[in-house]
Amino acid sequence: MDVQTINSMNYEQFQDTFGNIIEKCLLITAAIWSKQPFSSVHEMEVCVYEFIESLPMSGKEGILRCHPDLAGRELSSGTLTVESQHEQLQAGLTSLTTEEQEILALLNSQYKEKFGFPFVICAKMSDKRKIMEELSYRLQNDPSTELLKGIDEVKKICHLRLQDILFKSAVLPTKL
Amino acid sequence: MDVQTINSMNYEQFQDTFGNIIEKCLLITAAIWSKQPFSSVHEMEVCVYEFIESLPMSGKEGILRCHPDLAGRELSSGTLTVESQHEQLQAGLTSLTTEEQEILALLNSQYKEKFGFPFVICAKMSDKRKIMEELSYRLQNDPSTELLKGIDEVKKICHLRLQDILFKSAVLPTKL
Repeated sequence: MDVQTINSMNYEQFQDTFGNIIEKCLLITAAIWSKQPFSSVHEMEVCVYEFIESLPMSGKEGILRCHPDLAGRELSSGTLTVESQHEQLQAGLTSLTTEEQEILALLNSQYKEKFGFPFVICAKMSDKRKIMEELSYRLQNDPSTELLKGIDEVKKICHLRLQDILFKSAVLPTKL
Repeated sequence: MDVQTINSMNYEQFQDTFGNIIEKCLLITAAIWSKQPFSSVHEMEVCVYEFIESLPMSGKEGILRCHPDLAGRELSSGTLTVESQHEQLQAGLTSLTTEEQEILALLNSQYKEKFGFPFVICAKMSDKRKIMEELSYRLQNDPSTELLKGIDEVKKICHLRLQDILFKSAVLPTKL
């Protein structure tokens, strides 16, 4: 999918295509519609990041809170978004041993207790071992460092979700 | 439901209860969690409005874009949120004549063409005749006036949704 295709979409098509590039934050996709037409796909992505940066601290924390726990209740109950389900599967989080599940649940809970938002990591760029190491490590950060780190991960996730949409449509042009 | 009950919720309960007080903008509910504990229900509501006011213009336009058309494709396809469905039903928008449907579709389309976001009105405080009159009238506004007007209506809708949640839980305390 190229930028001309994106610029030719009506709002409903744009929302259906890009509505979840930031997990459960339809508002962000809806906001960047104000910036179209885009000169490139990259510019559209930059608009997303600029909007995130324009938010007060509570808004950035809010974005992190819209993310599910890794291997948490939404994975067990089958209520993850399609994108999150795919990312957690790819990182091996759907096939944890009971012990791994218990460790991850404990670390997630300690993290949320300390920071007031869930641990967010670009799972697709990682695997279950690295994720647990990173979670233990990041638990030691101070809240302001961790907010920045979490938002950086949100941007990585967004970048890969955008790549997925653009690549998928390139392979299957008849689906456009 | 009183403020003590709200302050005693964990984030998942808070999200399940208040996640759609601003239509499809979970991010806003997630952001105001940063402000708890609240001194009153009114203070919680004020936090929502302050967050909305903190957004850049694109964010306010984005909030309006998260709202469905009145008597539009989401009503026909049964994909409205529970809250919107209830509000459109109460305003008589689910039982329009074919002629009324056509007029409303035309006005909605003219409005979106002019402003770049859908017509938002607190349907619960109105009825189908008044809604169509107001839509024709507001179509004549300039974009900045109409953005302010739309956001005012979002706040009225939020207020009534909050009242509904608080009242419902008062009538049915066992559901808490």
